[in-house]
Amino acid sequence: MNEENALMEAFGRTQVQLAGHGGRDAAVLKKALASVEDSLAADMYGTGTVIEEFQAEMAEALGKECSVFFPSGTMAQQIALRIWSDREGSKKVAYHPLCHLEIHEQDGLKELHYLEPLLLGSADRLITLEDVKGMGPGIACLLLELPQREIGGQLPEYAELEAISAYCREQGIKLHLDGARLFEVLPYYGKTAAEVCALFDSVYVSFYKGIGGIAGAILAGSREFTETSKIWKRRHGGDLISLYPYIVPARYYYQQRIGRMSEYYEQAKELAALFNSCHKVSTLPEVPVSNMFHIHFALPLEQLAPVLIGIYNETGIGLTPRLKPTGGNSCYYELNIGDVYGGLSKPALRETFRLLDERLKQL
Amino acid sequence: MNEENALMEAFGRTQVQLAGHGGRDAAVLKKALASVEDSLAADMYGTGTVIEEFQAEMAEALGKECSVFFPSGTMAQQIALRIWSDREGSKKVAYHPLCHLEIHEQDGLKELHYLEPLLLGSADRLITLEDVKGMGPGIACLLLELPQREIGGQLPEYAELEAISAYCREQGIKLHLDGARLFEVLPYYGKTAAEVCALFDSVYVSFYKGIGGIAGAILAGSREFTETSKIWKRRHGGDLISLYPYIVPARYYYQQRIGRMSEYYEQAKELAALFNSCHKVSTLPEVPVSNMFHIHFALPLEQLAPVLIGIYNETGIGLTPRLKPTGGNSCYYELNIGDVYGGLSKPALRETFRLLDERLKQL
Repeated sequence: MNEENALMEAFGRTQVQLAGHGGRDAAVLKKALASVEDSLAADMYGTGTVIEEFQAEMAEALGKECSVFFPSGTMAQQIALRIWSDREGSKKVAYHPLCHLEIHEQDGLKELHYLEPLLLGSADRLITLEDVKGMGPGIACLLLELPQREIGGQLPEYAELEAISAYCREQGIKLHLDGARLFEVLPYYGKTAAEVCALFDSVYVSFYKGIGGIAGAILAGSREFTETSKIWKRRHGGDLISLYPYIVPARYYYQQRIGRMSEYYEQAKELAALFNSCHKVSTLPEVPVSNMFHIHFALPLEQLAPVLIGIYNETGIGLTPRLKPTGGNSCYYELNIGDVYGGLSKPALRETFRLLDERLKQL
Repeated sequence: MNEENALMEAFGRTQVQLAGHGGRDAAVLKKALASVEDSLAADMYGTGTVIEEFQAEMAEALGKECSVFFPSGTMAQQIALRIWSDREGSKKVAYHPLCHLEIHEQDGLKELHYLEPLLLGSADRLITLEDVKGMGPGIACLLLELPQREIGGQLPEYAELEAISAYCREQGIKLHLDGARLFEVLPYYGKTAAEVCALFDSVYVSFYKGIGGIAGAILAGSREFTETSKIWKRRHGGDLISLYPYIVPARYYYQQRIGRMSEYYEQAKELAALFNSCHKVSTLPEVPVSNMFHIHFALPLEQLAPVLIGIYNETGIGLTPRLKPTGGNSCYYELNIGDVYGGLSKPALRETFRLLDERLKQL
């Protein structure tokens, strides 16, 4: 067995974990379903109380005229960009080099919609106002991801975001928000979702990141935009006869967790500080701006994995099931704070980091 | 209130219905979920026991090397045709003029995949071997739907199906099965699913028609075909983090109902005979070949609806919530036999049809 499998197995045997809301098992769905009556009528092809009420609630929370529930963000965002591309009569869109559409969707945007993305800025930093001003002509839509997940969940300062929004409006460039983790950044910005979304023409939010539902996404914007998105949802094969198996958990866990985002954010800062106190460990960002951050280790995966496995076995606390190698002799992983962290014993946590620091110091 | 709304409301007040498996409410999902442990691990992006086991079971049932679970048939079938089109290097595919892809999918096949469908045969009848022989050159894939839903669920004789399959193989034309209701036609053909599927290169089956699940589809074929379909599933936004909320019910209701298809078929023939015994009523096909048929009324919707409403109110039995006008002074609806029919009181059923015949005779 190699180190990667050994790490996953050892993680699987731990009693508690640092990240997340707990296991992704059938209990997650059962618990949410227990909150609705047996007689709750299924939605039918986008109609019915269960879907319409949630769409209305989310439109209000996001400060948009309308919203549409989608089975996935992949589908919702390709469609958003396609609509703006058609509207503006240009196949050019712009996004970060590590945008979800560029690296996780098998090029659906290009293969299905024939759009031509401009990779804006650099992979290792946020898009800036200067980048936006230098895009060149003919960009139908700029997609911004808040927080920028693949670089640890970084955020532009709010004033820069406002300036980018103002510039795009002035230039007639549509601005789309990849808000997969939008709710998670509101405490840092000290803004409501509606305030942030007001800077954008269209918005996608996810219900299985910080919210911890099963799957599913909301796409919000003007009525005209969302009505067009329903046609594309049908074309993509996303207008399922019934989406309530995702909507009921989305609504249930939204209600459970939307009020806890500040807590997750504070805990992320606390935990990042614990990591940063260890030899050969640094977090990105150093001080988190949401419930997520990346943990970088200045040693190769093969050397780190046995250390982590030892700590899992001794403490019963699992840090991560997997590590990603980076160029050079280092590796990292992504961490998202959820319900679990608050239940951890502080002495056990301190002991875990004491062990981690001690063992890394010896290497 | 117009007749259509009045009919739907009156239907909503009936105690029992002729068609289906009962209401599409949250209890359908809860019941299926009760069959699995709370600790059942969610599938993750197409991996995990819950999805892999079901895909293996369905591949075996359909006699194909592999199968892939999709959130919808719309997605699965567009992808099947796209794969064959790419493989054969031709954008031309062929299907029936009332194919689901042509009339129910907002032209996803054309708008997302730029395929060029040839509408084969006529809208009011099945595709024949002669039609297929006359298609002309360059067709990458022929899609056949068994049964042909929009004309009442008709079926070609099995020998003709075999001849079409043999011809396509000889000519190098891929043959895809729209088997949304495949399980429902097996009793008429007296064949296994695997025997029918052996005539086709790729096969789609649905889990919320006769099976009565929530949503979802299986696409089956060779390993090479299904592996390519997974890439397109990701592109379409159908590779959800977890599909178990559809897979668990699909498997549960498949096990419950796959053995009942002969019963539904016999009941459909019995019920069609009752309809055909009434004045101004005829079924298509006259003798059903599956659990479904269409019921045509030789009078306009506006005249029929009050008659049906009266019968619903007097008997408590609901025939249909809606009617579709056809050209001319007639209308029709589609009926699918499910679990409910077997539980109806025979005397109440006879009284319902006596009333229907009596009232239609007077018009």
